[in-house]
Formats: sequence, structure tokens, C-alpha cells
Amino acid sequence: SPRIGVSLVSVVSETGDLKKMTDNAVFSQNKVLTIDTMNPNVKNVEYAVRGPIVQRAVQIEKELREGMKKPFTEVIKANIGDAHAMGQQPITFFRQVLALCSYPELLKDNMFPEDAKSRARRILQACGGSSLGAYSASQGIDCVRQDVARYIERRDGGVPCDPDNVYLTSGASDGIVTMLKLLVCGEGASKTGVMISIPQYPLYSAALAELGAVQVNYYLNEEKCWSMDLSELERSLAEARKHCNPKVLCIINPGNPTGQVQSRQCIEDVIRFAAKEHLFLMADEVYQDNVYAEGCQFHSFKKVLFELGPQYSNTVELVSFHSTSKCYMGECGFRGGYMEVINMDPEVKAQLIKLVSVRLCPAVPGQALMDMVVNSPQPGEPSYTTFMKERTATLSLLAEKAKLTEEMLNTVPGITCNPVQGAMYSFPNISLPQKAIKEAKALGQAPDMFYCMKMLEETGICLVPGSGFGQKDGTYHFRMTILPPTDKLKLLLAKVKEFHQKFTRQYS
Amino acid sequence: SPRIGVSLVSVVSETGDLKKMTDNAVFSQNKVLTIDTMNPNVKNVEYAVRGPIVQRAVQIEKELREGMKKPFTEVIKANIGDAHAMGQQPITFFRQVLALCSYPELLKDNMFPEDAKSRARRILQACGGSSLGAYSASQGIDCVRQDVARYIERRDGGVPCDPDNVYLTSGASDGIVTMLKLLVCGEGASKTGVMISIPQYPLYSAALAELGAVQVNYYLNEEKCWSMDLSELERSLAEARKHCNPKVLCIINPGNPTGQVQSRQCIEDVIRFAAKEHLFLMADEVYQDNVYAEGCQFHSFKKVLFELGPQYSNTVELVSFHSTSKCYMGECGFRGGYMEVINMDPEVKAQLIKLVSVRLCPAVPGQALMDMVVNSPQPGEPSYTTFMKERTATLSLLAEKAKLTEEMLNTVPGITCNPVQGAMYSFPNISLPQKAIKEAKALGQAPDMFYCMKMLEETGICLVPGSGFGQKDGTYHFRMTILPPTDKLKLLLAKVKEFHQKFTRQYS
Repeated sequence: SPRIGVSLVSVVSETGDLKKMTDNAVFSQNKVLTIDTMNPNVKNVEYAVRGPIVQRAVQIEKELREGMKKPFTEVIKANIGDAHAMGQQPITFFRQVLALCSYPELLKDNMFPEDAKSRARRILQACGGSSLGAYSASQGIDCVRQDVARYIERRDGGVPCDPDNVYLTSGASDGIVTMLKLLVCGEGASKTGVMISIPQYPLYSAALAELGAVQVNYYLNEEKCWSMDLSELERSLAEARKHCNPKVLCIINPGNPTGQVQSRQCIEDVIRFAAKEHLFLMADEVYQDNVYAEGCQFHSFKKVLFELGPQYSNTVELVSFHSTSKCYMGECGFRGGYMEVINMDPEVKAQLIKLVSVRLCPAVPGQALMDMVVNSPQPGEPSYTTFMKERTATLSLLAEKAKLTEEMLNTVPGITCNPVQGAMYSFPNISLPQKAIKEAKALGQAPDMFYCMKMLEETGICLVPGSGFGQKDGTYHFRMTILPPTDKLKLLLAKVKEFHQKFTRQYS
Repeated sequence: SPRIGVSLVSVVSETGDLKKMTDNAVFSQNKVLTIDTMNPNVKNVEYAVRGPIVQRAVQIEKELREGMKKPFTEVIKANIGDAHAMGQQPITFFRQVLALCSYPELLKDNMFPEDAKSRARRILQACGGSSLGAYSASQGIDCVRQDVARYIERRDGGVPCDPDNVYLTSGASDGIVTMLKLLVCGEGASKTGVMISIPQYPLYSAALAELGAVQVNYYLNEEKCWSMDLSELERSLAEARKHCNPKVLCIINPGNPTGQVQSRQCIEDVIRFAAKEHLFLMADEVYQDNVYAEGCQFHSFKKVLFELGPQYSNTVELVSFHSTSKCYMGECGFRGGYMEVINMDPEVKAQLIKLVSVRLCPAVPGQALMDMVVNSPQPGEPSYTTFMKERTATLSLLAEKAKLTEEMLNTVPGITCNPVQGAMYSFPNISLPQKAIKEAKALGQAPDMFYCMKMLEETGICLVPGSGFGQKDGTYHFRMTILPPTDKLKLLLAKVKEFHQKFTRQYS
């Protein structure tokens, strides 16, 4: 299994609580629900982005508050793509509309621009009892899905989008899990295999573990800036067919944790491959506005699919995911998102609608926010200038920080970092001395977990070890976000450099 | 299986789309994801509250808008506990705080009361970057969990509550599904059995179908106002032990769809039963403020557990669910909720935290709303009087409508309705003529689905057939909410009466 990592229990033990847990294990023999009687699929789930290292970081923050002496005064978290937590400001227009929707009395006030008011009125009219507090349709509010459809059409140069194919979700994660739930079945050699990139965003491995599906790894090519190789897809698929039934291919573009932006040619190759090999495509496109590198451009899978002509656009099954959490919005806490399904069997669509209806609906404020993202201020509207200024400033700053991160990391001997073409992360390769690898293994830890944990304890910097995302055997990485404010990012990168050099000396 | 009902496909066929679907079935033989290749557990899911009858209601609304002639001019939906959609007004204080949190510029304004501002500041300070747009801890914002703990302590007369045992959720549904996910495992005779009341809220049967667990039915006693009988629990458990491993007992109190409020004695009996039989208790207590009948009172399972003394309070595993969607708030769209776990094994708690971390966090506006519910305006604060007036008005009106519904339904020959002691629903017993039952069965429909569908087509009233919740063989019911505005509720009840009489004549 590629899901190397330290289990929660062993990390808790590092923090000195092992004895307590052992006692409890004895005490809990009479419990109905124990580690031995619980769902074993859940036990197999791992999620590094919020895993043991982050829990330790939270603990250290508490220790600092309580006055414990450390070689640093604050924890800098670069473990998760949480833009607002790192100081990014929300888009004023979005928050004005949300305030108006939450407390419609404000519509009577003169302090809000007319376009914010008219957006709020439109959303409220589409809500039961004109309230964000009513359930929406399980697929999402009609007018929001219509706005999403028009947004997709504009984005894709006019390729048509039917609002009936759009499902609003609680962030992209919810949509991805829902689709996998529909797709995964079978036992033994007929069990569904799902192809995911390595490195991958661990939501995928976690969801597959929970569903008991077979995770089929294809490796991105680090030497070619984390690109996708057709030959590697072929190898991975052929290998998987020996022991399971691979029927889904997941792609993250722009890449998480790897920050690459796929070329149009690559996307075309992937689509032809999926068509030939009869695979269902899942395209995670939540970073679609986060493209920084010169010469790079975001191409949606849907657009390329339609440009390949009807023999592809009428047959290949594709679902694409988007969210309010990334891009220039960074509104993770609202859990807004949508997915568009293409060429889905109508009977399956009915089943999908039934499935989402059990959870009633995605949170309505998140739906409202998604609407603003796809229906943002237009030229001539009062909020347009401010909106564009804020949007551009955020994206330019991210582009600067992407460049800065790549450049500074590449000055460290033993660290090699591909260009951060897009998304919000760098995933540099780190050389670890044999002695450190040995010591980590003696502790039962992945070597890069050992490295990151040590960095956290010594510098207060919280990164996620590459083993939480998967990597080629014998290579080591970490993922760090480019989100901290520029000053703090520079400090962080300087500290990483210093730590890496010290660590290398210590174990050489 | 008690999940009788009409499949989506057959309902679509009633609306004339059968041919299209058959064509598609042929056409879709080449698809990766079809009704035959999809996850069979998902196919087994049914969810009546948003099922075929509601989809038909939405279609009829559209037909009315398009000018189609019907024997009625509007659809009255009494199928779902969606208070705001039925005209209930949100609590002013809650919405003020939400507006302030959404757009903190408003904190500078003089239009909001000081207590609303201080609540908003407290929540924002607890958010990353002081923004609702940051992810929260996966278990929920710390200060909100602390406020929840204090609320529970007040509610339960001082029984202690540890914030570490509180998990914020996306509505109660999310918590229930998460807990079942932890609990369900095994195959064949060792597969987990979950005891649920019949009638039940179909989230339970849907979640169990999705997880592939064994649904173990215990029947509520309709003759004794839908109470729980110990002997029936014993019968059900003994029966289940022949073919599965029953380890969970779910209770909904106040009852959905049945509207009963359990006596303290009954809760005590259930806890002793769970202790004796080694069952994990799940108490769905989302209607805890919705108690109307004289002599009835809400007793939380936790309070009664602790009153039974340490041999129970130190051993019985219990989880209780609450939500922002019901009571006097009715804020369904925000998907706020929490669960409190008692006596959960610490290793399992670590697994639970890991599991919820994969989905990152519940929507933060819903967490903020949950905070206001458990930390509402206090005597002496500027918003207190208005808050209490609004809260009391809403609950009194619901009490009136509960009484009205029961009384009017009981005037109809062939309809018998238990008192609506609490929650938001009546679940009357309806006598159906043999001829109607025969005709329904010939159409492959549950008789009460046939009845409700006919009522919808002839009167525009949307109710949910009892078969969607489960009921004793040979009995028929429907669930209707008491939520429509009084005038509309009276009209609805008059129409139900008229329809029932006509239907009875027609098929006698």
C-alpha cells in the first residue's frame, strides 16, 4: 500500500499519552465500539493534511500559549490550503451579498451597492420562504445551477452546459466522495479500481480506503515537472487489470500537491486513453484560476473533450469538480462547490439525485457564495472595479509567492523544487542522509515524517511529509503551501533552509 | 425488507418518460457507469421525504407555472420539516450575528445591538484569520464546542459535559451517518445489526442500506400513542440475533414521523435494556424544544443515564444528536448541528477525529449559528426581550397547529390520529378500501403511495406515504408536517378530509 504514514495511536504515544491509551484499551474491553470491533475500512483511512503532524502543531501552539519555552515563538502552518487563515482577505462584494442574504433588513440600507443588493434579491427569491434557512433542492438551488452552467459555457468558449448536469456540493470533497460511492462495487478480482496520481491529494486515498475500493497508482513524472506520461498510465492500468476492475481515472489539474499545470496535448492524450480503455474520468479542477507560470494555461477537460469531436464528446463519461475554497476566493469555511457530469447514464443520474437527497442539501450560504463566484460583478456594475482590483491583487500575489518559493527552495543544497506553475503548493524533493532514514525506520516512522516532525519541533514550521501524498519508493518530499504572507513566507523559507542544512550535517 | 416504495424509474415512467429511459438503456450499454454496474448498495437506498412524490410535486408546480389547468392553483407541501419555506421567520438576533460575521465592516455600524456585535466578535476571533472563510478544526470551532458543552450542562441540570466529547456536524444527518460508518462492519451472520423504530425517519434506513448494514426493526405501539415497549425491543433483538450481530439501538425522541414524546420511565427502561444487552445507544434529539402536549416534557438520554448512577453513566455508550434545523430556529439551510459522545473508547475517538478530518470541517456559518442557539441572548442583554418574544411566538404557534392538526384529522371517518405531543409531524392511520389496495398493487405501488399520489394530482397537497417510513403490515399512514401557516393548514386539512371521503366512496 502506498499509504505510508504514522498511525494516530503511535503519534499520540510520542506525546507521552501511550500509557493512558493502553490502560484504556484494557478498560474498554467491555465496550460495544472498540478499535477491534469498529469498521476496519475506517481504520485504513489516512489523511495527512490534517494528520498527526498537524495535531502536534496544535499542541505546540497550546504549549506556547501556556508559556513553555521553545526555540521559536510561533507555529507557521503551511500544511493546508487555507487562504483566509493565512491572512488573505475575502472579496468585499461576496461578503456584502452574504450579509444581505443573511439579514435581508439590510436591503433597506443605503450602505450597500445596488449590484450586491440585486444579487442578494435574486438568491433570496430562489430560496424557500426567501430564506437561506430553508432547505434547497438536493441538487442545489435552480438559479445557482443555471448561473454555473452559463459560467462553464463562457469559460469553455461556448461549449453548451445543461444546468441539469450541474450538482451543487459541500466543497469539492463532497462531490468526489459521492461520485466514488456510485462507482465503487464488486469483490475480489472484480472490485472497482480507481486510478489516482502519485503524488495525490489524500482525500482520494482516504475515500477509496473508506469505500474499500482498490487504489491504482500512476506516477507523475517529477523529472518532467510532474507531467502525466501516457506510457505510465498504460503500465499502471495493465498491472491493475491483473487483480481488479479498473474503471475510473482521476486527474487533478492544476495539480495538488505538485503544482503542475497540464498541457492541452496531455489532456487530449488522457481523454483518448480513457475512451480507448473504457474509463470514467474524474477531473478535479478546483485550482482553475490558479495558473501562474508563463506559457501555462488552464484547459478544462470538458472543453478539450468537445474539441476532440462527437466520437469523444458523445461517449466519454466525465465529471468535473469546482469549489469556492481555492482560486482567488479562498472561502474554504463555506464549503461551496459544484460538479458537472457529462454523458452520465440517465438512470444513474436518477440514482445520484436520490443519493444526494438523503443528505437533504448542501449548506445554502455556500451555494449562495458559489453563485457569486460564477456570476461576479460585470463591467459597468458599481462593484466591478473593486472586485477586479481585489481579484487581480490576490492572484498576482500568489504568482509572486509561487516564484519566490521555487527560487528560494532551489538555493538549498539537497532540495530540488519544480516550478509551481499553478495551484497553491510546492512539493520539493529532499535528500535525506542514510543515517536519518535508518533512525526514522527504527522509530517506525516514514523518513520524511521524521524530518517534518523534527522541523516542527525545532522551528515551529508545519509542513506535510511527502509520504502522506505518496511518492516513488526511495524518494522523499514535503508539501508546503505558498499561502503565508510574503514576509512570513520568506522567514519560513529561510528557516527551512537552515533546518535542512543542520539536519543534513547532523545525520551525515 | 420494510423499505416498501416505488422506485424512481417506475415513477418517471408514470410521467411519460419510460420510453426515453428504455432507449437510453440500450444506448448506454457502452457506458462505464450504468444501473447494472453501479454500487448496488446505493440502488437499495430509498428516501421518501424527498422521493418520487416530491419530485412529482415539483413537476406539477412547473406545469402550473406554464399555465396547465389543474383542479387547484397551488401545491401545498407538507412533506418535509422545512419551517422557513413554510413562512416561519428566522430569529432576528441569529441573523444579525450571521450578517456581522459575514461582513465584519458592519461591526463599525450603529444599527446592530451590542450583544449581537460581541457574539460576532467572539466567533470571528475563534476563526482562522478572523474569517468565516477559513477552515475550522475538523471537530468544530473550539469556543463553539465549549458553548455547546455549557448548554448541555444547563439543559441537564448540571450533569458535566466535556467539550472534547462534542463534535460539530453538518446537520444531525451528517453525525448520524458518521457514527453508523464507525459502527457497521462484518459479513453474513456477524454483520452489524442496527435497531431502528418503525415508523422511522428514512435517513436511518437509507444510511443502513448504503453501508450494507442489517436494519433491525422494532415497532412503536400506535395504540399507546407510538410509545416504545420493552417487550417489543426484546422480541426484535432476539429475532435479529438469529441472523446478524445487533449492536446499535437508535431512538428518535421527540418522534419523527410519529410526534410522540417519550416518558422518563421509558427512557430509563431503554437505557437499562441497552446496558443489559450490550447495545450502543444513538439518541436523535433534534426536536428537544418541540414539546407541546400537557404533561409531556423532554428528558435527554444523557440526563437520565446519569441519574441512573455510575454503573450506567460510566459504561453505557451513548451519542446524542442536535441540529439548528428544528425547534424554534428552523434553520435547515445552514446545516448546523452537533453530537455528544459519552463513554466512547479513546482509541475510537481518535479514529472518529481522523474520519471527520477527511471532509475538512462542517460549514462554518452553520457552526456560528449553532453557537448562537446554545448561547442565545441572556436576561439583561439588549436582544433578550425580542429574542424571547420571537422564540415563544414560534413555539406557541407550533403547539396550536399540533392541536389543530390532531383535532381536524380525527373528525374524518377512516382517519385516526394520535396526539402530536412534540416534533413537527402527525402520522395518522388511514383506512383504505380493499378495491384501492388491489388497484395499487396491480400498479406495483404501495397502497398509501397510490393514495398520496392521487391526493397530490387531485388537490395539490404533497404528503409522504407511511410506507416511506415503515409501518405494521396491513396498516396505512401518511406523514404530514404541522408547519404550513394556520390558514393554509386549515385549508390543507379540509382538503385532506374531502379527498379522503371522495377516495373512500370511489373505491367502496
